[in-house]
Amino acid sequence: MIFVDACFGKPTPYTPVWMMRQAGRYLPEYMEVRAKAGNFLNLCHNPELACEVTLQPVDRLGVDAAILFSDILVVPNEMGMKLDFVKGEGPVFEDPIISQADIDALVGGEEAANKLVYVYETIKLIKERLSHDKALIGFTGAPWTLATYMIEGQGTKTYNICKKMMYSNPELLHAILAKVTEVVKFYMEKQIQAGIDVVQIFDSWAAAIEPSKYDEFSWKYMIEIADYLKAKYPHIPIIIFPKGVPAFLDQVYGNFDVFGVDWSTPMALAKEKLGSRYVLQGNMEPCRLYSQEATKECVESLANTMKEGRHIFNLGHGILPDVPVENAQYFVKLCQEVSKR
Amino acid sequence: MIFVDACFGKPTPYTPVWMMRQAGRYLPEYMEVRAKAGNFLNLCHNPELACEVTLQPVDRLGVDAAILFSDILVVPNEMGMKLDFVKGEGPVFEDPIISQADIDALVGGEEAANKLVYVYETIKLIKERLSHDKALIGFTGAPWTLATYMIEGQGTKTYNICKKMMYSNPELLHAILAKVTEVVKFYMEKQIQAGIDVVQIFDSWAAAIEPSKYDEFSWKYMIEIADYLKAKYPHIPIIIFPKGVPAFLDQVYGNFDVFGVDWSTPMALAKEKLGSRYVLQGNMEPCRLYSQEATKECVESLANTMKEGRHIFNLGHGILPDVPVENAQYFVKLCQEVSKR
Repeated sequence: MIFVDACFGKPTPYTPVWMMRQAGRYLPEYMEVRAKAGNFLNLCHNPELACEVTLQPVDRLGVDAAILFSDILVVPNEMGMKLDFVKGEGPVFEDPIISQADIDALVGGEEAANKLVYVYETIKLIKERLSHDKALIGFTGAPWTLATYMIEGQGTKTYNICKKMMYSNPELLHAILAKVTEVVKFYMEKQIQAGIDVVQIFDSWAAAIEPSKYDEFSWKYMIEIADYLKAKYPHIPIIIFPKGVPAFLDQVYGNFDVFGVDWSTPMALAKEKLGSRYVLQGNMEPCRLYSQEATKECVESLANTMKEGRHIFNLGHGILPDVPVENAQYFVKLCQEVSKR
Repeated sequence: MIFVDACFGKPTPYTPVWMMRQAGRYLPEYMEVRAKAGNFLNLCHNPELACEVTLQPVDRLGVDAAILFSDILVVPNEMGMKLDFVKGEGPVFEDPIISQADIDALVGGEEAANKLVYVYETIKLIKERLSHDKALIGFTGAPWTLATYMIEGQGTKTYNICKKMMYSNPELLHAILAKVTEVVKFYMEKQIQAGIDVVQIFDSWAAAIEPSKYDEFSWKYMIEIADYLKAKYPHIPIIIFPKGVPAFLDQVYGNFDVFGVDWSTPMALAKEKLGSRYVLQGNMEPCRLYSQEATKECVESLANTMKEGRHIFNLGHGILPDVPVENAQYFVKLCQEVSKR
């Protein structure tokens, strides 16, 4: 599989490409299935429909990897936190975590991971139907990113409830992070057993932590998960994507394969700091997809920066809902062609 | 004035300190005046009340500088865009800019700046009442940050309307930025003539632009404003605060005095890249104010990193509304004491 080889830094006939949120709202066929499901969470819970939307961008765009359609918040949901998606507000947990008793009341470890059976069913269906030359990426949210929702109860601009806990009661925050980490280890192991080819850990809210605290409250938990998986499944590549941490690059360590570079970090800087140790994934600014000219400028620049290889093309964050499908197709094709030369 | 001397890198008896948003909701006396004003915009329009809240943190905390109480959006408002502050949603412009005709319809240059007379009146009142050893900081939003509101019509998570314009129709975005820049030059000149001692330019949404485009769409406009002011008023120090640009530090240039370091950029990194050319301001993570212990850890570390001077203490972003006043007092006092040793 070209994609898996590229994750391990092996030579490939061209640099493979996929897009974060490639199974998403910019695709009319996704919107149809989503409407059929009724709501977003139903779609995550329905293996047949989740499989269908996972495969759509592979057919439509020719990306080199599919990514499991799901949501990072199914994990705290199955740990016992009631999850709603409120129109215009995004995800909401009715009863956020405020005490050790709240943590103790959550379902933990393998027991919580076992409740995510609809995810494993989805993976099995996808693997039956996905072309054998394409990889299937499974994923999880990083413990920190999951914890922000569990503590704030919803999306936040300031993360002030989490960060008040970080500075005033760090033990409590660590207790949450440790419990989530245990569940995620089993969750990703079960995704692997169900058939995924690659793991990606999304730390979408990495940039909410100041650089001097990022290792303690997020990075070390991701590395704990990576170490656990690598010891048992060394053939499964692990991608870590911490969004918005250009000031943390000097401190990156650990046993994973691919570092996902977000668009706020210049690829040349990431290459200088990390390119010899990790394969780099990314990092076109997603808004460039509004213009084929801006897309071309960036893809050619990335291809030039990464001309020695050890690269996977991607956006530097998720594709936006109002991007024209033909521009996404243009991006994928251009990445594959430009890296063949 | 200690504060002005520090901005120019001259030796001072201790390192001065102020806090972004120090005239704000964490102060009960601010909430009282705000209630009296009826709404936020009324408070900006009323020189007597705006003066009162500007002076409150100087009295209560002993900071070394007052910052004019106002809002960055009074500028586009006086350029002709109707501004509302909607509860829970923040600022809203009813008719965002979508075309050259919309830009042409805006009031520009000195004519727009003349309409901000309530700001200059506020400055005059403050200067009459502010202790002569304290500096008064005037401010503006950076053209880019102002433009994001003028184009999106409100706050945004993705900036996708602005960035669609950036990549698909950059000429139109430049036309907006140029027109705003012209107004801001006159606006800041008139603030200086009214009596401010220091200028700060806030680029609050700097981090929305990828590093390779930041100079073109934001930095160069701020430097144009700085050049204009420096040529006429070299005795007025200029602070530039671009929030969230650790990956841009290698490209920083221009004729200003103080670089405001946000909390996502380690002070040691800013010092290494910029410390010989600019005085550095910042940069405690504002959430550390929830804990005196976390505050102490950071202030001592900053004092140590910046022990050769050329530093102004501040937070790395605005103080949050639910911070205890005594913790803010503790921070200010500690900064002043620790740097005396």
